[in-house]
Parts: sequence; structure tokens; C-alpha cells
Amino acid sequence: MGRSRQGSKHKSRLTGCAAPIWRNASTISFSQAVRDFQSGTRTPRQFLEGCLKTIAAREPVVKAFVTFNIEASRAVADEATARYRAGQPLSMVDGCPVGIKDIIDTCDLPTQMGSRIYDGWQPRFDAACVQALRKGGAVIVGKTVCPEFACSGGGGATTNPHDPARTPGGSSSGSAAAVGAGMLPVALGTQTGGSTLRPASYCGAFGFKPTHGVLAMAGVHPISATHDHLGVIGGTLDDTWRVASHISLAVGSAGKPCLSGAGADVPPARRPRRLIRLYTKGWAEVDAATREVFDAIGEDLARLGIEIVSGETDRGIAQLEAVLDGGFVERSVDITAYDMKWPYEQYVARHGEVVAKRIHDRIAKAKTMTPDYYQGLLAEKAAIREQWRQAARGADAFVTLASSGAAPVGLEYTGSRTFLNYATFLGVPAFSLPLMSVAGLPVGLQLIGLDGQDGALCAIAHWLMRELGAG
Amino acid sequence: MGRSRQGSKHKSRLTGCAAPIWRNASTISFSQAVRDFQSGTRTPRQFLEGCLKTIAAREPVVKAFVTFNIEASRAVADEATARYRAGQPLSMVDGCPVGIKDIIDTCDLPTQMGSRIYDGWQPRFDAACVQALRKGGAVIVGKTVCPEFACSGGGGATTNPHDPARTPGGSSSGSAAAVGAGMLPVALGTQTGGSTLRPASYCGAFGFKPTHGVLAMAGVHPISATHDHLGVIGGTLDDTWRVASHISLAVGSAGKPCLSGAGADVPPARRPRRLIRLYTKGWAEVDAATREVFDAIGEDLARLGIEIVSGETDRGIAQLEAVLDGGFVERSVDITAYDMKWPYEQYVARHGEVVAKRIHDRIAKAKTMTPDYYQGLLAEKAAIREQWRQAARGADAFVTLASSGAAPVGLEYTGSRTFLNYATFLGVPAFSLPLMSVAGLPVGLQLIGLDGQDGALCAIAHWLMRELGAG
Repeated sequence: MGRSRQGSKHKSRLTGCAAPIWRNASTISFSQAVRDFQSGTRTPRQFLEGCLKTIAAREPVVKAFVTFNIEASRAVADEATARYRAGQPLSMVDGCPVGIKDIIDTCDLPTQMGSRIYDGWQPRFDAACVQALRKGGAVIVGKTVCPEFACSGGGGATTNPHDPARTPGGSSSGSAAAVGAGMLPVALGTQTGGSTLRPASYCGAFGFKPTHGVLAMAGVHPISATHDHLGVIGGTLDDTWRVASHISLAVGSAGKPCLSGAGADVPPARRPRRLIRLYTKGWAEVDAATREVFDAIGEDLARLGIEIVSGETDRGIAQLEAVLDGGFVERSVDITAYDMKWPYEQYVARHGEVVAKRIHDRIAKAKTMTPDYYQGLLAEKAAIREQWRQAARGADAFVTLASSGAAPVGLEYTGSRTFLNYATFLGVPAFSLPLMSVAGLPVGLQLIGLDGQDGALCAIAHWLMRELGAG
Repeated sequence: MGRSRQGSKHKSRLTGCAAPIWRNASTISFSQAVRDFQSGTRTPRQFLEGCLKTIAAREPVVKAFVTFNIEASRAVADEATARYRAGQPLSMVDGCPVGIKDIIDTCDLPTQMGSRIYDGWQPRFDAACVQALRKGGAVIVGKTVCPEFACSGGGGATTNPHDPARTPGGSSSGSAAAVGAGMLPVALGTQTGGSTLRPASYCGAFGFKPTHGVLAMAGVHPISATHDHLGVIGGTLDDTWRVASHISLAVGSAGKPCLSGAGADVPPARRPRRLIRLYTKGWAEVDAATREVFDAIGEDLARLGIEIVSGETDRGIAQLEAVLDGGFVERSVDITAYDMKWPYEQYVARHGEVVAKRIHDRIAKAKTMTPDYYQGLLAEKAAIREQWRQAARGADAFVTLASSGAAPVGLEYTGSRTFLNYATFLGVPAFSLPLMSVAGLPVGLQLIGLDGQDGALCAIAHWLMRELGAG
């Protein structure tokens, strides 16, 4: 398997660590490179050329990109080089190569949504997140593959960078694969179910889905404005956090607060006192090997003095789990279907023959729903969000898997999103941390927090990676 | 002045009514016509031809439209005619001619935003509100004039249908003028400051700005998602309510409840027990004639047994007024400026020479604002919304003017929005009721309510129009 299994059985800094820890030897770090840019030992142009070299080597098999902007990227990287030389970088992302999921508008590259309806479609202006990155000097290298409108349920051409026979996950397939392969330090995704954290887990990258609304979705093709999140996938926690922070600080998100703790550096590592281990439905899907590694992580955490609580002993958590699995997910999918009426009703009516069956089904379902039913779903969601807050009292975060195992074999099925739906539908922040190695493939640990407390959650992610990660 | 002064000094049904009541002889009613469609005495095509005849007569002077879709409209009206004949209308708006403000996407007509940046721009799909109307069989007659991006502050070509030397108000200038002239029963506008209710007031039409978010803004060019509202302008309360209801019921608004009380018929008239008269800053702008007419309306209401309370006697209301005029409006405009960063930063950077000075100024201001400052503004807004709710206790609605007088002479200045900002920035529902006649020109009475209680507010509007209106 060569490159694809480099992560297996690396030991973390924790002496006697029980769990096999993932290490991705391909990973590149923009945040580290910035120090070289500042000291003059490396340039953004050189950093970009490193990315382009990896792209040349890996892209024929990984197939992460829909379109490239190579020459323009070089010009932008040269401008960044000049700015660092003058000691005046534009922002914390100046010279950072990024990939943009192809449902996000870019003024200089087509935005084709993985749909034949948008073949060759060229937006006139950048989405808010791209505007923020471009204005900050980031280098938009290309658009990354996503299945049709990021919600067809199917796969695309992209393969898993650690095993080309396996899915990279979806729907931010290309973004996660490009980062997992070390072609880019960071790329933008979106998540309306599991579309950022699942591919991040499968590709051995960090995935971050912030609190709903905190990163602007303007100019991103919608599925469900109630559940759509902009996500960031990065090779390091630093780069992931830096890009999310820059977007939030540079453009804001109408009517919403800034990403808490936003800044060029990740929040200082904070040792959690108590973590809640969620035992939800997805565990029935988990193979023995993954379960073993997750349990070993739990033992490692216990050895580090972290209290792990669960529904086995805590009644509030057991009740929360029962509610989360008591129809909440299915009814949240109904919210998504209702929200999809615009614009998918038009797609189905006018271009039905090229629209995925799953989208037809959602629209058919939406037509059976009444406004009162929809309003009831929103009320239920609000109540469960409150229950989540109550259950979290006294704990620092929730932990669970970010996927029900390693990436499955095959490209058509992009994997289960069972573990991801909760944080998405609740709108709370979540990270996928590339911590675990299962049979030589990456599996993410999912860390879930509280509304608006993204910075606090990142501080815990930072600590976990420092104590357990391959570093 | 001919046509333009038909409203003066009509007596309401209230015996001895003190106030001169506006009557617009040009007004047409789709809701009334529906009864004829159902009984077979008139057809949607005939109704449309009536509109087109008025358009032919008035449009050369009023200049309400940017583009027309006459032949397509006739075809759609013929289809509606066939459906009524078969006893199977598609919806409560089947066959209803509507005008669409030109910042709202339409798949069959350009959407030019009043900006040279969008000269000839043809969206591929309809905005959510247009999708709802078209699906329901409504007849999209044309796009209506608005100044640049509905936020340049300037006027357009449109003239006031009651006096061509006067502004129709802005920025939903064309929509209000088309309805005021009787060219259409109803048209869509938007409001981010005073852009629906102000032109409605000046043109002698009903203006309705629902609770923020209740009518979907998807596919409408944004100014500030925090403050942007879809608005409806109609010749009758019935048509205004019907169109708002249909949009809400047919397409919904992601993450938001349905318009309360939505239905084909306006909520039954409800007599208010107590109304709060707001004495805010705008009163300093009001001329003696307008003040007299407003006071006369107050006397009429008192005679009808309605208790009118104000800050003169109620401390909570006085405190609310002090807060509303204590910088809230200016700071809300800062929220708008911050939200405008996307996409206006791109417009200014790439097309600055064709962008209005006011937009340049807003973007320059936004660049001076920190995310913390913005977050503080949102917190202040939440607190004032709560104060509004507290002050409203025990009362049925707030009443004030919908403009600081009749439409001013001249086309460049679209009038003051001082009276309109409060409801917009608070996100609460508001109506402009074409009740008052000042020197032969219409001035709207503004009725403002509570978040999500649009139906209850409409019931009071219904009662006021029935008791005081020219009928």
C-alpha cells in the first residue's frame, strides 16, 4: 500500500499509549511555513510549488480537483512573496494555498456544483468566504470535487489518498482528499449532514464545522439554510483554525457573532476535566477494530486523568442519547427537505432528467409537509438544543467517532453519516481529529461542543492532539 | 392634477369622521376579481388586459417598469383562465398579475439591480418568492424600478402616480408606483430601512413588511441579511395579505416559522383595545398639515372607543422612545454597513467607478469596525427588541406615521425613512395603511406589531381600514 498506510502504529508522546495513533507523513503546514516566509528562508511561491509538485504526483490517482488556476496562483503567490519580503503580509492567510469546494462561488473559476445543470457555469463574484480569503492574499489553487449539489448521496471521481480503492467520503470529497494527500495545507468544505467531518475522518485530516451561522454561507449553493455550515479541512489544527478565523474576522456573517477565540494561533491547549462519551446509534455500525482503538483512546485519556462519563452512569446523558436517536435525525432530514424547496423544486421541474433520485425524493417528501409540521420540527430542534446544553453541564466536551470506521471500499458509497448528524442538526461546533489508526487507515475522533464556544472546543482539541497525537 | 388628487376629502363610514381620508380611485383588487373568475363573469386574461391598458395609459409618465414580459404574461393568464374554467385554480394567486422589484431574481427577465454592474444580467433561476408565485400561477408582468442595489440613496426614473413632479419614494419605487397607479393589484418590494412602507405611503398603497425572516429572501440581492425583508405592496389589504401568505405557505423560509395567520383571506377584523402612539424623532420633520390629519385620526379612534396611550403618560413608552432615538438607528445602520462587506467590497474594488458614493461610504465605514463592535451591536439590538416587547404589554399595536408627510417634490430625493427604521431594525411586522389624505396626497398610517404576530396585526389593520377607510 506504500504511501497509503504510513500512519499505522505510530506511538504518541504518551508513554505506554494504548491506542494506535495515526500519522500522515504527507501533511504540510502553512502556519509553520509562515515563520519561514517571515525569516526569509522560504517564500509563498516556493510553498505553492511544493503543493503543485504533490498535485502533479498524486492528482492522477486521487482526482481531487475539478478545475485549476495554476498560473494565476503563481502570480498571487509571487505577490505574497513580495509582501513578506517587505514585511507587510496582508493577513494571517497571505500566501496560503487553498482549495474551494465546487459549490462555493469563485469569480475566476467555474462553479459547477457537480451538476450538469451548472456545466461551465461562471459566477461573476466570489462567495463571502472566498472574498475573505482572496482579500487576505490566499492562493485559490482550484475547485475541488463534490457530488451533485453536495447532496445527491452518491460519490464522485475522487479516491481516498490512503487507498485508491476506497472512498474519500463525501460530499467535501475533493477538499479532504487534497489535504489528506498533502496537495494543499487546507481547503474549504461544507456540512449539511456529515460532509466535512466524514471525509476529513476518512482522509486523515482535521475537519472543523463551526457553530451554525458563524462562518458566512453567502455565495455557497444552499441545501438547507437551517443546516448548511461552511467547514474547513486542514492538515494541521493550526491551519484549520487559522483559515476559519480569517474568514470570520475578514467578512463576518450577517446577524451572527464572530468565531469565538478567532486568531492566527489556535487557542492555547486546555486540559479537559470531564468528557462525555456519546453512545448513539452509529455504534451498531462500528467494526471491532475501530471500537478497540476508540476504547484504547478512552483508556489513554483515563490514564491522563480525564474523567469520561457516559449514559451508562449518567441519567441525563442517557436521556439525551435516547432523544437524539428517537427520531430527531429523521425529522431533521425533513427540515432539510423542506428547505430544499428553493431552488431544487425548479431543478426538478425544469431539469429533472439530470437530477439525482435522492433530490427528487426529498422534494417529493417536502411537498407532503405542511408549514405547521415544519414549524413543529423547528420547535423540537430548539428543545433538543436546550437538552444538549443541560446534559453538557459540568463537562468540557462530547467525544465520539467522526465516522463509523475507516473509509469503506468503493467509490459510489461515501460512507455513513450517522455519527455526524447530531452536531450538524444541533448547530453546535465539532472537530474531526485525525488521531486513530485502524488497520493502517485514519479514523477521526469527533469532539463536539456548545453553541458559540468554538474557541473553547479548539483549546481542548489542541490539548488532545498534543497529548495523544503523533505530533 | 386630474387623476392625481382623486383621494382628497372622502368621508369614511364613521359618522362625523374628523380626518380627511384617502381614496385611490385607480385601485384594482385581485381578491375581488377571483370571485368573478370563479363565477365565470370575468377571466384572468381579461383582468390582465385591464392592467395592460392602465400600463399603456400611465407608464409613459409613471415609469414604474424596467422590463416587461407582456406576451408571456398573456399566455400565463390564459392558462389560469382555463384552470378557473375547469374549477381547478392552482393556488390563491392563480392568475394574479404581479410586479417584481428588480433586485429579485427572475429566470425569464433580466435582474439589473439598478446597477450598471448588472446591465442585462439574466439569472438562471427564480428567487424563492418568485418561484412560489410562478408555481401558484401568478402572472409575472415585469420587473419594477429600484435605485442602485436598493441602497444608493438616490432616486430613479419613476414618478409618483399622484403627482409626476413628486418622488414615488424608494427603493421599491416602481412596485409602489405601479400599484398606486392601478397598473397592478400587487407587487413585491424589499425593506432594509424604509423601502417598502415609505413608497407605499407616498403612492397611496398598502405596504407590508412582515416579521424579519418570515418571507424567504433567497435569490434576492442582499444589502444586510440582518435587516433585509421581503415586502408586499398592494392596492388592497386583501391582495397584500394574500400574496404574502401564498409566498410563505408555498416555499417557506429556511429555519423560520410560517407567516402567522397566513391564508387566502385577511384575518377577520379585530377591534384594538389600546394602541400606543409613538412620538419619535421623525415628528420633528412633520409639517403642520400632516400632523393635523394624524391628530384627527387619533380623535376618530378615541371616538371609536380606542384608548391611545403615549410616552406623555406612560413611562415605559417614554423610555422606549428614548432608547429608539438614543443612537439605536445609527448603530443599526452600522450593522447594515458591516453586513454589506459581502458582496459590496467586491463591487467597490472591481467596479468602484459605477458604484454610488453612499455604498463607498458604507464600505469605508465597515472597514473601521471590529468584530467585537459588531457583536456589541447585535447584543444591543436583542436588548431593545426585548424592551419593545415589554413596552407593548397590554396594548394591541403601535401607531405612527409611515412617512414624515406626503411625497416631496423632486425625483432625486426619495424621502425620509425616519419613521420606518424602527420596525425594520427591530424586525417586527409593520403595515403602511393608505388612510390619510394631506393636501390631496396620500400619507400612510403605520401600524407596528410584535415579532411573529403578523396575523394579529393584520386583523387590526383590517378593522382600522373598515372603520376609517374610504372603503
